[in-house]
Amino acid sequence: MNLVLLFPEDFVSENRVRLSGRRLEAIERIGSDALRVGLVNGRIGNARVIASGELEVSLESEPPLPIPLTLILALPRPKVLNRVIAAATSMGIKRIFLINAWRVEKSYWKSPRLSADNLRAQCFLGLEQARDTVMPKIELRRFFAPFVNDELPVIAQNMLPLVAHPSASEECPRSVQRAVTLAIGPEGGFIADEIAAFERAGFRAVHLGARILRVETAVSALVGRLF
Amino acid sequence: MNLVLLFPEDFVSENRVRLSGRRLEAIERIGSDALRVGLVNGRIGNARVIASGELEVSLESEPPLPIPLTLILALPRPKVLNRVIAAATSMGIKRIFLINAWRVEKSYWKSPRLSADNLRAQCFLGLEQARDTVMPKIELRRFFAPFVNDELPVIAQNMLPLVAHPSASEECPRSVQRAVTLAIGPEGGFIADEIAAFERAGFRAVHLGARILRVETAVSALVGRLF
Repeated sequence: MNLVLLFPEDFVSENRVRLSGRRLEAIERIGSDALRVGLVNGRIGNARVIASGELEVSLESEPPLPIPLTLILALPRPKVLNRVIAAATSMGIKRIFLINAWRVEKSYWKSPRLSADNLRAQCFLGLEQARDTVMPKIELRRFFAPFVNDELPVIAQNMLPLVAHPSASEECPRSVQRAVTLAIGPEGGFIADEIAAFERAGFRAVHLGARILRVETAVSALVGRLF
Repeated sequence: MNLVLLFPEDFVSENRVRLSGRRLEAIERIGSDALRVGLVNGRIGNARVIASGELEVSLESEPPLPIPLTLILALPRPKVLNRVIAAATSMGIKRIFLINAWRVEKSYWKSPRLSADNLRAQCFLGLEQARDTVMPKIELRRFFAPFVNDELPVIAQNMLPLVAHPSASEECPRSVQRAVTLAIGPEGGFIADEIAAFERAGFRAVHLGARILRVETAVSALVGRLF
């Protein structure tokens, strides 16, 4: 926990908060009197422990800039989902769509990890890791065709629209200096019909080399390469 | 498993292998008659299932090129180690040193995950993921100073030597077009004395922005950015 995330309800006065549970335990584990803190969706700053679970806080700076990337992710296996959401959040991604695809197993959509509470908890972990405060917005889209055909062209408007596809002929560009909408497929990839739908929506299929990467590795590598 | 990794002892004749255990289960799960296969440290190709656990193989192409990166990694928590080794292997890293640092907990060095067998197993997973066959070489260095002072300058010779350090003033370069030796610290980072030792060994401290990333996210993002 590189930053303790604060919520409006933690404040007992203008510059004093009272914490319990997971965050209190983390603070006690860190064992330092001086901490980095940040108000969710707000400023970051420093805090001093004045009593057990009580901090005096001063929020004087802005959180780090987001990266201008909208991530379209075929819903990964529940086991992988938490890691991907926390990692994407830590990298500064602020908009994520979890979508269906041919090779997404139906059962994944029933996972309790898709609950708003769990997704929010994973975002908290990513923010605390990266010393950020700005929550990403995560949306679920259970139907591929209406999303890609109707909604996606609007989402990706004025952005560079890319779909990662190991057998694409074009290499993923580098340091693009503009906002990107990036779609990443499930294990085994998007099927040809799905890639064609993305292309009709204006997307370019790009590859990252001969290697097939796990989704969490691919997300980080693509962000590192694009921005 | 995007590629079934084969070993010399699997071959019952020149182009026929017999598999059992984990790989047989994976093949049965995939349920296809045609598979991608590769001989460890050798060529990759196709295979046809001719009986349960028996494949006819034809190894006609070279594995993907490695990336010219030597990774110097402060030994991560055991829980993280497996993921980092598999991810680094999947990205094509072929030389990894796991080293000590001030903020590496002593107990990490006693983890059974550091056994040669476990490290090899994680490399297999990374190779199978990425359709590669060439095993990385992983070496352990329990003493920071002799490694960084004496051994590292030789390892990094003729390479771009970088140490990732969140509070560095220089940004990590992009698309470097040359071999890199990259050092990544433990949770909480290298301490100032350690960064100074890297700098005396010729390393440049570089950052990846204001965000502090988990080691597995940082490795992938740095590889994506550098190559």
